[in-house]
Amino acid sequence: MKRIMINKLNEYIDDKVLIKGWIHSIRKLKSITFLIIRDRTGLLQAVIENEKINSLEITLESVVSISGTIKSSKNNLNPFEISVEELTMLNLSKNELPIEINKKSLDINLDTLLNNRMLSLRHETINSIFKIQNIISDAFREYLTLEGFTEISTPKIVKEGAEGGSEIFKLKYFENEAYLCQSPQFYKQLMVAAGFERVFEIGHVYRAEEHNTARHLNEYISMDLEMGFIEDENDIMNLEEKLLKFILNKVTNKGKDYVNFLKAKIPVINSNIPRMKLSHAINILKAEYNKTDLKEDLDPEGEKLICKYAKEKLNCDFIFLTHYPRKKRPMYTMPYGNQLTHSFDLLFRGVEITTGGQRIHNHDMLIQNIKLKGLNPDNYKSYTDNFKYGMPPHGGLAIGLERITCQLLGLNNIREASLIPRDRTRLIP
Amino acid sequence: MKRIMINKLNEYIDDKVLIKGWIHSIRKLKSITFLIIRDRTGLLQAVIENEKINSLEITLESVVSISGTIKSSKNNLNPFEISVEELTMLNLSKNELPIEINKKSLDINLDTLLNNRMLSLRHETINSIFKIQNIISDAFREYLTLEGFTEISTPKIVKEGAEGGSEIFKLKYFENEAYLCQSPQFYKQLMVAAGFERVFEIGHVYRAEEHNTARHLNEYISMDLEMGFIEDENDIMNLEEKLLKFILNKVTNKGKDYVNFLKAKIPVINSNIPRMKLSHAINILKAEYNKTDLKEDLDPEGEKLICKYAKEKLNCDFIFLTHYPRKKRPMYTMPYGNQLTHSFDLLFRGVEITTGGQRIHNHDMLIQNIKLKGLNPDNYKSYTDNFKYGMPPHGGLAIGLERITCQLLGLNNIREASLIPRDRTRLIP
Repeated sequence: MKRIMINKLNEYIDDKVLIKGWIHSIRKLKSITFLIIRDRTGLLQAVIENEKINSLEITLESVVSISGTIKSSKNNLNPFEISVEELTMLNLSKNELPIEINKKSLDINLDTLLNNRMLSLRHETINSIFKIQNIISDAFREYLTLEGFTEISTPKIVKEGAEGGSEIFKLKYFENEAYLCQSPQFYKQLMVAAGFERVFEIGHVYRAEEHNTARHLNEYISMDLEMGFIEDENDIMNLEEKLLKFILNKVTNKGKDYVNFLKAKIPVINSNIPRMKLSHAINILKAEYNKTDLKEDLDPEGEKLICKYAKEKLNCDFIFLTHYPRKKRPMYTMPYGNQLTHSFDLLFRGVEITTGGQRIHNHDMLIQNIKLKGLNPDNYKSYTDNFKYGMPPHGGLAIGLERITCQLLGLNNIREASLIPRDRTRLIP
Repeated sequence: MKRIMINKLNEYIDDKVLIKGWIHSIRKLKSITFLIIRDRTGLLQAVIENEKINSLEITLESVVSISGTIKSSKNNLNPFEISVEELTMLNLSKNELPIEINKKSLDINLDTLLNNRMLSLRHETINSIFKIQNIISDAFREYLTLEGFTEISTPKIVKEGAEGGSEIFKLKYFENEAYLCQSPQFYKQLMVAAGFERVFEIGHVYRAEEHNTARHLNEYISMDLEMGFIEDENDIMNLEEKLLKFILNKVTNKGKDYVNFLKAKIPVINSNIPRMKLSHAINILKAEYNKTDLKEDLDPEGEKLICKYAKEKLNCDFIFLTHYPRKKRPMYTMPYGNQLTHSFDLLFRGVEITTGGQRIHNHDMLIQNIKLKGLNPDNYKSYTDNFKYGMPPHGGLAIGLERITCQLLGLNNIREASLIPRDRTRLIP
């Protein structure tokens, strides 16, 4: 007999069926036992005469196969239940579960949640986080594909870091030293110029950051895009605005049930996302919130406050900050005058979720800028040589997938938005 | 004026338009010059009076913006051309290109092709490889999503290798030693048991193989899947059969033009892919081809010959070999009797493109098998502990994306099927 999924059983009233799944709960009465069975599509009440299972050990979270008849019934789960004829134990679970997962809410701390990832993911609200995360990344892919972008996959073992700084993992690569990729920056630029013009990548990136905060992971998923033939960074912000509207719309519609489980508030972008020069934002923080310690960038508190301002005064959960100083941006960033750049960050509910901007496309300007940063152009030759042969004006951005998931769902810690997180100390599971 | 893509210009006959792209070829006559302009959608003939460009340096592969009028015309490319009013140089290319990319075929060796990856990818046939590769991975995702699979993304920095052996890259992870993931095996099994039941991942895996062959990469893209509640490995082979039919169908239809550029022959799977015990295959190789040096596995020559046999005698480009010996398979493989396993390889045109099988789901059997392999179960505790709490019977497979692309398109070297390959010596670009 073929297994029927629980969410299809309404088509089988009074039929004999085979179902398989986990034992979600057990309530033993004098002569019958009520089980709740869980498969990937839902929950089902099963009723079984005790004499049929007296010889069997039955524990929570055991894997079973059940044959029986679907009957109309009034229970909390469905307008039907299964009257069990035969129950086969496929894999018996040890009785002492490290966490209880058949409760309405999982009241455990983050370490316990992550140490028992397989079990915690069985809980509806935890599982929903990743259903929503998939909707976000699928929508990113779908929208960009409609806009003529090509998906790429580029190496994560690299000879030179793209973002500068010391936060980079070293690796022995046979006789050579190599690094884990901090971002696909160089490669996505190459692929624009390779004739794809518009490319995106959804892939891992690595940051060897020493600090262990609630908003950093050492391995995370970056949703990157890069596009050629732009005028300036405004084209990139325009694209991101439409992209975000598309993503939020998908989450609201396709993700409705999951959003409800998580009691999340999904924002609506009614008109445009406000764009503000970083220097102007710093002035506002001084004037409105008496925050006077900022000079050329925001700190976490500044990010929170400017988002508060955007929400209260500009009626938007998002805000673009633009014109970051040259010294704060990597060497590939297109300068704007002597001091500033054609760049932006996107902040969402208090946290930066995107960095983007226009890139330098002129070979000589790029070499000069590398020198200006105190770096040696010889180390970047396999990158910069490409700029000799027809690099179009271009720009792009990156959205941290776990970051946007975390902010969208109001999670307390970014680790909750990573299936199997890697942080300063966590290498297992 | 808004840029119009070349493949939309048939809607603009007699209109003034703006186009942007690369200069693909230049033919200068006495008073006019013919340029061919290339954008991501195609090629266009442009006609320009020499007096308009006499002051400009114009080189092959330079990036230009052109405004002009679309006029009906008879040329090799389109039933129209552009009569140029203004040409703006966006980024001048150096005159001495390292490779000529406007020839029908790129007659260069592999190293030159890869060293100049940005340029070689501009060539239609090279570009087509990756258009097909995207069709393959998109079809993998689409089919499995239809079949109720959930996409996952799991860590590539791991504490313990899944596949055993020494072919693993080491990494310093803060105070600890870590490795680059050889396969998402452990994590996809965990995710089956986490309630997703059916999962897939398209992601990088790493093999520190010392040898530098035409069919190995040190970083490649693995299309992995794992599914719960199976009977045995035949369920996995059944799924792969349907999956491959779906993929090949997509390549044939959506990839028609690219397949033509590459002169590739896409096979059709008419009925079922033959399944043969490995021991039987070894006997056939002895009897039919006098190949007597094989015992418990095939060598590359054996793989070629058994595929020849499958093609000639069984009328199929593919063949499943089954029942591999325990000693040849990793510790998580479900044993079949004392000596063999519930496992299979899929061979395609002389090369293995898939390894798969049923996995052990019983905790105690897994611990025993780890010991039998001479490994220490303590090192795998964060993996094996999960088997105590309801692991369903399950199995899965992995398809190497570059491998299947290479075999499908008849490429000589797997490096041609990787955008930016990593091999024994290649760390750039």
